[in-house]
Amino acid sequence: MLMTELIAKKRDGGTLTEEEIHFLISGYTRGDIPDYQMSAMLMAMYFRGLDRDETVAMTMAMMHSGDTVDLSRISGVKADKHSTGGVGDKTSLVLCPMMAACGVKMAKMSGRGLGHTGGTIDKLESIPGFSCALTPERFFENVERVGFAIASQTGDIDPADKKIYALRDVTGTVAVRGLIVSSIMSKKLAAGADIIVLDVKYGSGGFMKTPEDARALAREMVDVGNAAGRRCAALITDMDEPLGYAVGNALEVREAIDTLKGAGPADLRELCLALGSSILLLSGLAADEAAARASLQRSIDDGSALEKLREFIRAQGGDAAVTDDESRLPTAPVQFPVISNCNGYVNHIQAEQVGLVSLHLGGGRATKDSVIDPAVGLVLKKKVGDAVRAGEPLAVIHAATETAAKQAAAELSACFSITDKAPEKPPFILDTLR
Amino acid sequence: MLMTELIAKKRDGGTLTEEEIHFLISGYTRGDIPDYQMSAMLMAMYFRGLDRDETVAMTMAMMHSGDTVDLSRISGVKADKHSTGGVGDKTSLVLCPMMAACGVKMAKMSGRGLGHTGGTIDKLESIPGFSCALTPERFFENVERVGFAIASQTGDIDPADKKIYALRDVTGTVAVRGLIVSSIMSKKLAAGADIIVLDVKYGSGGFMKTPEDARALAREMVDVGNAAGRRCAALITDMDEPLGYAVGNALEVREAIDTLKGAGPADLRELCLALGSSILLLSGLAADEAAARASLQRSIDDGSALEKLREFIRAQGGDAAVTDDESRLPTAPVQFPVISNCNGYVNHIQAEQVGLVSLHLGGGRATKDSVIDPAVGLVLKKKVGDAVRAGEPLAVIHAATETAAKQAAAELSACFSITDKAPEKPPFILDTLR
Repeated sequence: MLMTELIAKKRDGGTLTEEEIHFLISGYTRGDIPDYQMSAMLMAMYFRGLDRDETVAMTMAMMHSGDTVDLSRISGVKADKHSTGGVGDKTSLVLCPMMAACGVKMAKMSGRGLGHTGGTIDKLESIPGFSCALTPERFFENVERVGFAIASQTGDIDPADKKIYALRDVTGTVAVRGLIVSSIMSKKLAAGADIIVLDVKYGSGGFMKTPEDARALAREMVDVGNAAGRRCAALITDMDEPLGYAVGNALEVREAIDTLKGAGPADLRELCLALGSSILLLSGLAADEAAARASLQRSIDDGSALEKLREFIRAQGGDAAVTDDESRLPTAPVQFPVISNCNGYVNHIQAEQVGLVSLHLGGGRATKDSVIDPAVGLVLKKKVGDAVRAGEPLAVIHAATETAAKQAAAELSACFSITDKAPEKPPFILDTLR
Repeated sequence: MLMTELIAKKRDGGTLTEEEIHFLISGYTRGDIPDYQMSAMLMAMYFRGLDRDETVAMTMAMMHSGDTVDLSRISGVKADKHSTGGVGDKTSLVLCPMMAACGVKMAKMSGRGLGHTGGTIDKLESIPGFSCALTPERFFENVERVGFAIASQTGDIDPADKKIYALRDVTGTVAVRGLIVSSIMSKKLAAGADIIVLDVKYGSGGFMKTPEDARALAREMVDVGNAAGRRCAALITDMDEPLGYAVGNALEVREAIDTLKGAGPADLRELCLALGSSILLLSGLAADEAAARASLQRSIDDGSALEKLREFIRAQGGDAAVTDDESRLPTAPVQFPVISNCNGYVNHIQAEQVGLVSLHLGGGRATKDSVIDPAVGLVLKKKVGDAVRAGEPLAVIHAATETAAKQAAAELSACFSITDKAPEKPPFILDTLR
């Protein structure tokens, strides 16, 4: 098989066979196919797309390019969750303890943040002593005992994806649905869960900008997951404003704890209930949506989910007392309000820009080598649809210095658009695909 | 300027500015832009094409990527000819002496053959002693004194083209009109002639497979040449069968000498008269087509063109006596006929396949490092439209061994298609564009 012929086939609108895709992915991962041929192929894929069979074949070939995790020695139902990335998304910190309390195991591998989206690991490691660097043995033990564990990716999981993603990033070939699907699903499949729920976000802070694109992506991910023999569901959710109020590592941990205590933002709570319901329904642990929601709500009301969070923090070396005394979490020395200068209603909050404000404060990574400040970030006081009066705070900046705080306040102020009339707010969860 | 942004612009159907194209070409030539980004750009160009302005800007940027030849110190009109490549194309060996006899200077830089097409330099170097390795000084002196010289490319001419061509070859991006035009024209413009005539071949042995594609390519090359301030013309010619009868290095030199003696194949003679007329008309040295053809015919009838060939061979170290005694040229030990096994008319000869027969005999290069045998090749006895009887020879193979001859005969036989009725033959020269 010749790479030049495969490029020409895809370029001319042909459909690559499973065997050809295996050759492509294994050859590129091994280094037999050079970057310059792969990037020509990726650009041809940009123009010609990948059909369902090609996407399934890409996903399977990428999944098998490295190690896969075998969760069979862990008892019970094993679930995983993936979000396409958003601003203020602390869902895993709330959902995992709830699922564990309901008897579902979650062996999650997670990433660090880059750019305007934060990473679950960065958030968790703002807890004093907490570490995501677990040995495989410890990881499995913790999942079995606590019900869930969150580790930074270990072993050689999906090397094909790492290499292809880096190339797509610098060759204008990120926005290809089949490549997005195979990148996400190959890693999730390699991570070994039986049940995979996906949170596909659309809007200004999401990876997909329109509901239509998000729906098409979600449909394909569910189909690919099903084709690989896993039970999958996907939610299409609004990321036109940040999720919840808090953006920034320790600030988001506080908000997650509040939510497990029954308080916290309505959108975050609703998202966790919806994702959790999907998992319980797919696993057969709940007969219907109402029963699923009731179980999940009970895990909050009776404190069992919060207790799971404490066990989890302890099991990964962290100070579980933060759940009762939030002053044990890193706190920024400067708090500075962003004040509204008019009356009206919050019409829109540019989520991606809000993510960048947190990044500029030091709460995120501009490059892979950036060192982050766990204490900084921002807490919104108003969300889309809220009434606001001149002089009221729209948000509070948490910063390391007065200067940084003021600069961030100016940036964050520009993210809000305020109008005379209350906007029509689309449903936060647009749809659920199974 | 960021390469990722330029890739996205072209991918999305935008038009690159002159400045952006300069950045692209100079950055890639210097090595600042990596192969993998250039190949993604080339594939985006494959899908989006290049408009006239982009093609002109590409051509100029590539031309200026290295040295350019200044012919201003040579007196008189300086012309150049380019062929898109064909099988049995020994035009330069006939045309250059005719033009020199008519007072037009030609300072040609030429290439060696690769694959199924031969190279002018390989053909010339079959003459004992002949060399195309000239110092720049000697090259200029010979052009001034003899009227023409043919050198292997010297100096650092158009390094951008070398690099881009090599990349296109392995990334499925050869067939992009704007890239073909800029590749050819940047080299021709760098070579410095005032007048450029182009022979754009179509058909089974040509670079373009249809007359329409050839015409579009020719139109764009002429326009780009004119935009660069040169006088240009292009002929659209048939390469559905080989040009002339001989294919192979010394065999083609013999045919060129015959043609300069007034014999030789009709198609080769006609092509040289047509190309030569275009040059004389563009240079103002002939008032009209009839006068141009008369001058050119006179250079053959009075022996002045043949005498120019002798001077040229001598000036580049060769044995000029080959023009009177062809046994001084390398001769293959084995001649073996390809016999027709039916009565009828030659309907078609697959030119590209004929080129490959010569290549397999050792007359061409499969790779850049192949050593060629100047004596081998083949001489057609029948061309398209000719009547043939069973038992008559279709061609004669010239080979190093009996085994090689027989193998070649079998291959060559398969290149002929013979039918009951004489085929309709399209005009050999389809059109002339100026």
